[in-house]
Parts: sequence; C-alpha cells; structure tokens
Amino acid sequence: MTRYIAPVKDMQFILHDVLKANGLDIPGYDELEPEFTNAIFEEAGKLATEVLEPLNAIGDTEGCRLENGVVYTPTGFKDAFEKVKEGGWNGLDLPEEFGGQNLPYVMGISVGEVLMSGNMAFNMYQGLTHGAINALLAHATPEQKATYLPKMVSLEWTGTMNLTEPHCGTDLGLIRTKAVPQDDGSYKITGQKIFISAGDHDLAENVIHLVLAKAPGGGEGTKGISLFIVPKINVKEDGSLGASNGVSVGKVEEKMGIHGNATCVMNFDEANGYLVGELHKGMRAMFVMMNEARVGVGLQGYAMAEIAYQNAVDYARDRLQGRAVTGAENPEGPADPLIVHPDIRRNLMDQKSFIEGARAFTYWGAHLLDRGHRLGDKEAEGLISLLTPVIKGFQTDKGFEMTVQAQQIYGGHGYIEESGMSQYVRDARIAMIYEGANGVQALDLVGRKLAADGGKPAMAFFEMIKGFIKENEGNEALKDGFLEPLKAGSKDLQAAMMYFMQNGMKNPNAALAGSTDFMHMFGHVCLGYMWALMAKASSEALENGTSDVKFHETKLKTGRYYMARHLPATGMHLARIMSGAEPVMALDEDQF
Amino acid sequence: MTRYIAPVKDMQFILHDVLKANGLDIPGYDELEPEFTNAIFEEAGKLATEVLEPLNAIGDTEGCRLENGVVYTPTGFKDAFEKVKEGGWNGLDLPEEFGGQNLPYVMGISVGEVLMSGNMAFNMYQGLTHGAINALLAHATPEQKATYLPKMVSLEWTGTMNLTEPHCGTDLGLIRTKAVPQDDGSYKITGQKIFISAGDHDLAENVIHLVLAKAPGGGEGTKGISLFIVPKINVKEDGSLGASNGVSVGKVEEKMGIHGNATCVMNFDEANGYLVGELHKGMRAMFVMMNEARVGVGLQGYAMAEIAYQNAVDYARDRLQGRAVTGAENPEGPADPLIVHPDIRRNLMDQKSFIEGARAFTYWGAHLLDRGHRLGDKEAEGLISLLTPVIKGFQTDKGFEMTVQAQQIYGGHGYIEESGMSQYVRDARIAMIYEGANGVQALDLVGRKLAADGGKPAMAFFEMIKGFIKENEGNEALKDGFLEPLKAGSKDLQAAMMYFMQNGMKNPNAALAGSTDFMHMFGHVCLGYMWALMAKASSEALENGTSDVKFHETKLKTGRYYMARHLPATGMHLARIMSGAEPVMALDEDQF
Repeated sequence: MTRYIAPVKDMQFILHDVLKANGLDIPGYDELEPEFTNAIFEEAGKLATEVLEPLNAIGDTEGCRLENGVVYTPTGFKDAFEKVKEGGWNGLDLPEEFGGQNLPYVMGISVGEVLMSGNMAFNMYQGLTHGAINALLAHATPEQKATYLPKMVSLEWTGTMNLTEPHCGTDLGLIRTKAVPQDDGSYKITGQKIFISAGDHDLAENVIHLVLAKAPGGGEGTKGISLFIVPKINVKEDGSLGASNGVSVGKVEEKMGIHGNATCVMNFDEANGYLVGELHKGMRAMFVMMNEARVGVGLQGYAMAEIAYQNAVDYARDRLQGRAVTGAENPEGPADPLIVHPDIRRNLMDQKSFIEGARAFTYWGAHLLDRGHRLGDKEAEGLISLLTPVIKGFQTDKGFEMTVQAQQIYGGHGYIEESGMSQYVRDARIAMIYEGANGVQALDLVGRKLAADGGKPAMAFFEMIKGFIKENEGNEALKDGFLEPLKAGSKDLQAAMMYFMQNGMKNPNAALAGSTDFMHMFGHVCLGYMWALMAKASSEALENGTSDVKFHETKLKTGRYYMARHLPATGMHLARIMSGAEPVMALDEDQF
Repeated sequence: MTRYIAPVKDMQFILHDVLKANGLDIPGYDELEPEFTNAIFEEAGKLATEVLEPLNAIGDTEGCRLENGVVYTPTGFKDAFEKVKEGGWNGLDLPEEFGGQNLPYVMGISVGEVLMSGNMAFNMYQGLTHGAINALLAHATPEQKATYLPKMVSLEWTGTMNLTEPHCGTDLGLIRTKAVPQDDGSYKITGQKIFISAGDHDLAENVIHLVLAKAPGGGEGTKGISLFIVPKINVKEDGSLGASNGVSVGKVEEKMGIHGNATCVMNFDEANGYLVGELHKGMRAMFVMMNEARVGVGLQGYAMAEIAYQNAVDYARDRLQGRAVTGAENPEGPADPLIVHPDIRRNLMDQKSFIEGARAFTYWGAHLLDRGHRLGDKEAEGLISLLTPVIKGFQTDKGFEMTVQAQQIYGGHGYIEESGMSQYVRDARIAMIYEGANGVQALDLVGRKLAADGGKPAMAFFEMIKGFIKENEGNEALKDGFLEPLKAGSKDLQAAMMYFMQNGMKNPNAALAGSTDFMHMFGHVCLGYMWALMAKASSEALENGTSDVKFHETKLKTGRYYMARHLPATGMHLARIMSGAEPVMALDEDQF
C-alpha cells in the first residue's frame, strides 16, 4: 500500500519564509497570505491523498484502451476528473474573464506539484489542457478565446499539443502535416501526429487539439509551420457541439509508464482547422509557452521523487533487517529498522535534500515567470529563460534517479509491481524525454541560452550568487557548510562557461560535448543557492525564537547534506567538460 | 525491431590480447586457443542472435503464468531451452564426470555474457541451475552428486536457490522455514520462500530446490541455518522420478521486468529435504558460491548495457534529426543522423567505454576465480573476494544507468514498449537488487572485505596498480591519457581507504556512510586499470603491425574517453566520503 501526504509545511516554508511571497511587489502576490495558501495546499493535498493517489496504481494496471474508435480511461478517472472540475483546480492561475481565479503562476505550480505527486498520469489530462490554454491566451483571437477558453478552463473540454510526427520530434522543421486554406478562412488539416498525451479520452465532451502543420507558401523547415485549433468535435457558432471533425485515434501506445494517460496516434483527415496567431509563425507561438511548460515538467521530476521518497521512508522505518553497526537500536525486536543503516540514510538524504532543493528552485523559477508576466520584468524573464532547461533537464534526470534510489530501499519488494515503487520509476522516466528530451535541454542551454542577450542573464546569475555570498559573509549559520561549497560550485560553473567561450567559437563541439555536464553542474549550483536561501530563512527563524525548532534544524541539516554530498559533483562535471570535444568526437561513425 | 550480435572480436581481444589466456599457467587454459574460443563464441552468438534474442520481447509481453499449480513459460521458451540443452551450453565449465566440458570459468562467464545479452529472463533458468550445481559440487555427498548433478548439468532438471522469506532478505538470521529431522536421516521442510527465480516452469521435468532452513539445536540467527536439497518431484533410489514432493507454487510475481522468468512464492509443506554439507553450517555453504554468483550478476549489468547499446547505435545512425553544428553531414537528406550530435556521442561513448571496461574487468575477475579454483592461488582468491562486491555493485548500477542512457537516444520512441528499449531498462534494474542489494555489496566491501586478511588483498591491489604504472612509465601510448588518470584515481581511492581506517574504528558510521561512494570509485579505478591494460595490448598490436589498425585505434580512443570522462568521478566520491558520517546521520528518525 502506497500513500501520499502533501508536504504543506515545506511548501509554505518556501513560499513564505524563503520567497516571502506575500510581501513581494508582484501583482496578485498580496493575496498570498500564509493562511490563504495553507488552505489551498491543504485542500489540494486532500484531493491528492483521498482521490488521486488511490487511483494511481489502478491507472497503471488498467491503462487506457481504444475500442471502436473510443478511448476509455481507467476505472475511477472519470469521477476523479469531475472532482477536479468541481474544485476549479484547473483555473487556479488562469484569467478570471475565462473562469479562472487569476492567482499567480507560483500557486499553479505548487498546487500542481501536489496533484502530480498524487497521480502523474491522471494529472496530465488537465496539465496538457493548461498548456493549450496558455497558447491560446497568448495567440488566439478574441473570438477564439471566447469560444474555447471558458470550456477549457472549466475542463468541460480538454486540450492537447500536436507536434511530433513519426519521423520527427526534436526537428520540427521536418513535419509533413498539411494545412490547406479554404475559402471561408479555415483550413483542412491532414496528417499523422504521434505521442499525443491525453490525445483522446472519456473525461470530457470535446478535445481541442492544437496542431502544428505546414500551410502553403511558408518555405522550408520550421519557417513554414503554423499553429491550428482542430477540435475533435466541431464547435458551432453558438458554442454548442456539432458533427465530428476529421480527427481519429489510430492507436493508444503501450508505454513504459504513465499508463493512465492515453498517449495517442492522432490521424487528421481533412479536419477543420483554425489558424492561431500569424501564418507561418507557429514555432514562435509554441516557444512562448515553452518556458512555462518546461518548468511544469521539471516539477514532475521532483514530484515523483517526493511520493517515492515518502513511501521509501515508511518502508525504511518499518522493515526490520540487520543491526545498527553502533549497537542495536531496537533490542527488543528481532532486528533494527532499515533506517538505522548509514547507507540507507545516505540514500534517503540524497532524496530528501534533492527534493526540497528542487521544490525551492521550481517555486523560485515560477516566481520569476510571474515577475515576467505580471511586471514585465525583463531581467527576470532573461533569468528564467536561461534556467528553464536546467529546471527541466536537471530536475527530471535527478528526479528519476531518486525514484530509482527510493525503489532500492525496498530491496526485492521494490521490483514487485505490488509495492508501487516500480511505477514511480517508470512514470518518472518520461519526464526526461518529453517536452524536449534532456539532451535538447542541454543543447538549448549551452548553444542558445548562455549567449542570449549578450550573455547578460548568465552574468546576472553569477552576480546574484556573488552578491548573496558577500552579503552573508558574516552569517554564522551559512558559514557552517553553505557559503564555501556554493562559492566553489559557482566557481566551477564559471570556469566551465569560460571554457565554452574560449573554445566554443573555434569548435562548437567543444561546448556541446560538455552540454549535459554543464546542465547538471548548473543544477547543482542552483540547488546549492536554494539551500543557502533556505538555510538563511531557517537560521533567522531560529534566531527569532520560532516555535518550530525541529523543523528549521532539519532544514539546516538537510541543506548541509546537499552542500557536502551533492555539490562536489561540480568538480567532476568541470573535469569532464574541460577534456573537450576530442574524446567525445574521436571515433568515426563506423567505429561504434 | 531489436537485434543482437555477439561482440566476438572484443571478447577475443580481452581473452587473448589482454589476458593472453592461452599462455597462462592455469590448468585448462592451454586449451583456450584463439581458434577454439572463437568457434565457441561464434556458436554462442548464433544461438543468442537466432534463438534467444527473438524471444526476448515475447517473454516480456507474455510473462509466465500459473494455472492449476503449473507454471507455464512464454511461447518459444521450451524449444529454445531444448536447443540450449542440445548444445551442452550449461556444462561448459562444469566437471566432465557429471557431463560437463570442464572448461575454465572464464569461458563460462564469457559465453554467459552472450546468452544473457540475448535474453536475460530466459538465461536465468540455466543460470540458477548453474549456481545450484556449484553449491552441490562444493558441499554434497558423492551419492547426492551422482543422483542430482548429471541431470542438472544436462538441464533435464533445473535448480533454484531458496533464501528469501517474506520478512527477510538480507538478514537471513531471521528465517523461519523449519527442517524437522526424520528417522531415516532426511528432513521435513516447512515454510514459505519468496522471490524464487526460476522457481517453477515447464522447461524441465524436475526442479531441484536448494533451501535454507532451521533445524533444531542450531541456535539463534544465521548460526542455526542449514542447506537442504528439496526436489519438486521426489527422486527414487534408482534416480527415476517418484511422487510429487510437498512443494507448491503460491504465486508468480508481477515484476517490473524479467517477465520471462518465473519469480515464485514457494510453499514447502513437510517436503522431503536432504541435508547438504554440515548441519547448521548452511550459511557457510552459501558463501562459498557467492563470489561466483555475484560475478555472474555483475556480468548482467554490462550484458544488458551491451544489447541496449547495440540498438541505440543503430538508431543513432538511422534516425535523421537536426544538423551537425559544424555543417551538414548528410546534405542530400532532410537532416543528419543523430550520431553527428556531440551529446549523442557523449551518451554512446559513455556506454561503449563502460561496457568494454566492464567486460575486461569481469573476464579478468573470472580468471582470478580460475586461479583460485584450479591453482589454489590464495592471493588471487583474496583479490577476487575483495573485488566481487565491486563487480556486482558497480557494474549493475552503471549497467542500469547505461540502459537508461541507451533508451534516451530513442527519444519518445524509447518510452514505447515496441522499441524494446524499455525492457532493457526494466530487466537490468533487478541486477542491482538480487544476489545481495548493492547497498549490501558496498557494506560487504567496506565493512568486511577491505580489512579481510589484515588488509592484504587491498594492499595487493594498490601494489598491482602502482607496479603497472611504474613498469609502463615509458610507454608513449599509455602516457597519452592513461597513466595520469589511473594514478589520480588510485590515489583518491587510497585516500578514501585511509580515511576509513583513521575514522572507522572510532565511528563505524564514518566508513559505512561512504560505502556506496567507495564501491563506485573502486569500480572506476578498476575499469581505468582495465583500460590501461587494453591500451597496452592495443598499442603493442599497433607497434607489431597488426592488420586490424582500426580496431586497435578504436580501443585506444574509447579508453581515453573512459579515462577523461568517467574517472573524474573518483574526486567527487572522495569528497563525499571525506564529509564523513555527520551529514548522513544528522537527522533523527522522525525528521525524515
């Protein structure tokens, strides 16, 4: 039996003690009183604990099935979806004019963590809808918004993103789906899309597909791509549903995990499509919403690690096996619980310190997005644009690794599906792949983001770290295990960047061969910085006589673990990077 | 469509160019002429390519099923098993007197790699039998050997190891299965065992279970444990089969992977059992065969990585996506193949350099076992005893990681079961758990093996590395990227050992908190040493005017990759280790 309880206290700590959200000068943040956010988190936690998590294993076992052209979701998903609708969870951070509550994105992301931990496959149905809504908000006409958004915000209709085709995922310039203009200004869309998450299902009465296709006259490659609305069922002028559109499900894929989410092959056969945004500017329309979508996937990395960790801790406390090397700790029992063993501790501390660091990084990133959207803060936009591939790539790589470590705590029992641990590993695996595979994130980071805007965001990042260290030189709590590792990690990261700058111009491969290493060392430095921020908040709380001494002491100790045992990875990554392109590119193709 | 081709040339290279097996002064090694071993490897390769690999996905999809007490294996397994029997593959390294061919263990292990890569779940049926045979060879009476071994060597009967019970895996002192002595000298065995690989199936007419149980008078904990033969079907005095024994299958487990192998709950209900070896000395009997079994599991780590790698290389060559940053390499086509991209190279080189290093380490380890068994070489025995947890733990951790990296090459397609890549990941995962979970391997290494025999084997290891470096100081090929990293890695490893020695006595947790890191850095140094040995062999071949220049140049380049990009991990592990027990053990149990 698995379980999940939303880590509300940890979430509140980041929002209020670390970010001090309520006092930030961002429109809407004044609403984020601790009692208010606590109530929302508690309510989301209840939904996750009582409704979503109990369906998680069922979704995995049953999966989705395609019968006579209709996709059926697992038992219980429909009722649960109704509860999500009723609670208005999808509209939390969406505009009021379309039925949302207009709360900041940081609230969408923090609540998203809870729902995702509870049931990743299930939560993707609204997650994809949310992404499609954002694309429409940014690019659709007022009429399109009025037609589609209210129903999508309320989840009466769900949404999808149709990008990938059989022969192309990353390289969208190769897509073949065609859009043929009609006299009435609409298009006929024909082609096949694959890996369409939540592509079809029985949870909502309509599915609004956003489809990338090529309309005539756009030229080769990505330049010719446009974005279209293609409803599963045609929407009449009055907003009611008409006849079926030329959209059908070719197949529901058998996947490694997220079985509860229908990953569909979608066939478009002269389907009615409606242009979103400018013709031939579809890629730009996609890119606008990518940062947010990628932060949302980065979230999945640690959200899956969180539920795996909670269950691993339970197991480590319950399972009696062996004796503590320093003397029996459960002398009355036949053996000590696993949690007494140092290597089990090492494993659990790896997880705990990563998860809490990643949570802070994600909320902090979401707050930068809010700064960008709500304040037009260009510096924040530059910074989050730089850090998005780090949040996505690093956190999903590490998050997956942590689910594997959590599974390991269970020994043989973790390999048996009944324990539930295998599902976390299998589900978490997809987050490293979709929304831009992590290698592509690393490429984006090193090949594009580092040099963006003349390197200003990267410089701003280092200035921020330097400034923090300088400002807190005298802080005794931070001097004890935080400032030095952060300084060293940041120095390694800068050295890697200098190496790229010096060598990347002559030989771009010298930079790209180190891209994944760079993404990972960047991630460690960011989480190190987050831990320093958290340590500062906790040491202040302790100084100010908090009533919750244990909570804040735990934070300091967990942070010191991260600094002592995760941050040393930066040296390894730097050494790899500085070995350059030569070892990586040495072989001819036929030598593999 | 997946595929597998045995890497015969690489295998031959290790056996003949690196180990120079044929010239070694070990009984039986004189038979290992290059033509002879090549013929065996080719034949094993044919079996793996044509018979085993095509059944791999079928085994995964169908799994094993229990119907009316009978376990059925997937379609095709029976025929394939007949082919393995006919080929005499199981007896390759077993004594001639029981029907084997008495070849050295290094041949058993190298052929085992091929069969394992081809189909891990299938190969476990004979793998477990092999393990049971070794236990009987070491401890059974001549009569028992005569009764059981010929049929087990020929695979008419298969074998199992029954250790784990619901409440205990690692801590076997807790087992509850009871052995009640009978007047005729036999025992009645009663209890439940779980996670019994190949516990029952339709491939052979009998299954010989080796069962750990407690007979009266042995005292508490592991001291009271004895080892018993418990046949599924009773064996009459004349060797023919009699009535069913009190052995039944309670369940076939649903697992994350190796679906083709029946992992059974075994119920023993007053089953007839026959003592193997001394009463109450069952644990000792198990330990004798553990080194070999663990080397065999360490093999699985890189064997699974090998087949995943082969398919990932195919995909990277075929799949067109994006353009090389240094200019189109397939200008006629719509895009370049994945393999032009530096991060794809980095990924593939990680895999290739690990696999080839691990293969060398495993064969070299097997050759130490042969030295021990066939020459009574105590030094070799000490060394392999020290290195066994490294082979098992490091190679299965890394091997799994490499299957994940191979899957990543496929992007979204890798997450779809149809690609076959998910299965490699799911199958490889078990090797980190069974035959002693990797945390237990690390504990064995640091808590037991390092200090064994007054630390002599550990000292001998470092002397060996030092001697090699000294001896080859003038070797130009080795000076180019091999000797310095090996020296640095070895120095890190020694520093970690010194740290354990200085701190472990006062505080054992200081050593054990770093055990997994130590195991990993040890693994890297071993593979670094192997790469230095391989580089030496290849540079000699090149100097001697080999006709296969490309092959040996590839070895040198792949080796330099390992040294430049894997070995820097030792510094990170050392830093983690030297941070000591404090960060790892800082939390109270209720702070998790």
